[in-house]
Amino acid sequence: MSPLAAGPPRIAVTLGDPLGIGPEVALRAVRAYLERPDGEAVPVLLGPPEPFARAADLLGWGRWEDEVERVTPPPAGDAPFESLPEVAAVAAAVRGTLGGAYGALVTAPITKAPLLAAGFPHPGHTEYLAALCGQPGREVMAFVGGRLRVCLLTTHLPLSRVPEAVRRHPDPAGVLATLGSALREGFGVPSPRIALCGLNPHAGEGGHLGTEDGEVLAPAVREARARGVDAHGPLPADTVFARAVSGEFDGVVACYHDQGLVAIKTLDPGGATNVTLGLPVVRTSPDHGSARDIAGRGIARGAPMEAALRLAISLAARLRSR
Amino acid sequence: MSPLAAGPPRIAVTLGDPLGIGPEVALRAVRAYLERPDGEAVPVLLGPPEPFARAADLLGWGRWEDEVERVTPPPAGDAPFESLPEVAAVAAAVRGTLGGAYGALVTAPITKAPLLAAGFPHPGHTEYLAALCGQPGREVMAFVGGRLRVCLLTTHLPLSRVPEAVRRHPDPAGVLATLGSALREGFGVPSPRIALCGLNPHAGEGGHLGTEDGEVLAPAVREARARGVDAHGPLPADTVFARAVSGEFDGVVACYHDQGLVAIKTLDPGGATNVTLGLPVVRTSPDHGSARDIAGRGIARGAPMEAALRLAISLAARLRSR
Repeated sequence: MSPLAAGPPRIAVTLGDPLGIGPEVALRAVRAYLERPDGEAVPVLLGPPEPFARAADLLGWGRWEDEVERVTPPPAGDAPFESLPEVAAVAAAVRGTLGGAYGALVTAPITKAPLLAAGFPHPGHTEYLAALCGQPGREVMAFVGGRLRVCLLTTHLPLSRVPEAVRRHPDPAGVLATLGSALREGFGVPSPRIALCGLNPHAGEGGHLGTEDGEVLAPAVREARARGVDAHGPLPADTVFARAVSGEFDGVVACYHDQGLVAIKTLDPGGATNVTLGLPVVRTSPDHGSARDIAGRGIARGAPMEAALRLAISLAARLRSR
Repeated sequence: MSPLAAGPPRIAVTLGDPLGIGPEVALRAVRAYLERPDGEAVPVLLGPPEPFARAADLLGWGRWEDEVERVTPPPAGDAPFESLPEVAAVAAAVRGTLGGAYGALVTAPITKAPLLAAGFPHPGHTEYLAALCGQPGREVMAFVGGRLRVCLLTTHLPLSRVPEAVRRHPDPAGVLATLGSALREGFGVPSPRIALCGLNPHAGEGGHLGTEDGEVLAPAVREARARGVDAHGPLPADTVFARAVSGEFDGVVACYHDQGLVAIKTLDPGGATNVTLGLPVVRTSPDHGSARDIAGRGIARGAPMEAALRLAISLAARLRSR
């Protein structure tokens, strides 16, 4: 435990794309939390004050200034993306969390195009976090919603590249172990049971419907079990999520984006929270985009960002108490 | 309308694997329907009487004999699989439906291994049906459950072969049209709105995550629209099913097995019905296997087979009234 963590944990909430709904949903989430706190935590809004001020005007909320910790972006240098306020806020949040100033971070949605135009060298938030932690490639993308906790073995790839990426995955057993540790340490599941989805229909049907399940995934489950993870599979993906909802498993590792996200988002439309596991910081975010088309109108739903904030608080509290 | 179709439609119910739970769930479904009929229909059990007699003993049901239409398998000839009772029953059901003796057929689950050992040259029930109809390749596999109606563009393939199969699909617009027709003619949806799932995550994100969505699926949607189908997409698969549940779409075409079946079976565990579209006969079946391990114990759940029977009756009634 860090020496700074003696009081209630402070939770860093980043502004996201200042031209999107990020500042608005960040404010909505913090206000909702303060109106109905369900744990000991102090949310802190990170970013330049102006976007928050505009959003607070929209919401008619006067108290916001007390909650903001000003982050002044550095001048544009060799890496101009670092001077974007949304990037500077994430960097400050990660560094603060690593240093013990915050218990966790919650990120509002960014817009990729302007970041990429400014030289952002990462596919997204999640990989940037891993780089800031000095552990690129260790990040595991996970989602919580609809009574499911789901990790992805591969993330944003064309479907045609998924089978090879599964074959070449450096450590699929490690992903099973990461989910197991997170469930035990962050979610309070004493003995988590983890299911691994088959890559192919019917988990390959004994090799009739593809060989990766037998050649890559079954050995990964055996290795995870040897490492003390209560892992099962590979199991047919079409029924495994219902089995998890019914209580047979505490978490599921999906092989690719749609396999996991179809389950989560069909059960819990608009309510899923993205969680980054495998890094020394806990990070959550709402599973929606920056929605520039409705920014500045005061109509963005704050519930997903609020769910992300409450999950971050709960995870930080459990991790602190260990 | 066939001249035989003047009375209430007769619905053929095949026995399935006689060593599995097929005869038991067929009897359970027919008994449940007769106890609570919800339409004008006469279910008829097709097969040799002995497996039904054994199942009726299990259930303590005396009336079963009135409901059986004996099918005597032909002697084993050049195609020994045709002499298997479960195959003979399906063949009789299809021929009878094509000839107008039945309004639809409901098939109990088969076990593939003994069929394959007897030279069965088809991957499954569905493809055999298409062959019996003289229309191989025209079959479209669909599922109904959890307020969803979902068709598959490709079925039982290793995931690594899916992208190429989507590229080479002879008529993806035709699958959209088939689902549209079925919803209009069989499900009573006057102006069905059909969504097509993207193959890649985020439906390819403008080509950043794969090219099939732009090069194959978007043109298929345009072609379907030109043919009068109210088709939409390709749309991100992770959110499209929730949109369909909410009423935005009446049916969804998924690109591959797990994309569609994760949605259906997560929403409706154990309750989905398999429907074969695109053929001149209507066929439904429960979405479970032959479960030889629990056969003969009287513990098989009849609800999925009953749901398949009721759906077949409803489809047959709507198609007859046209």
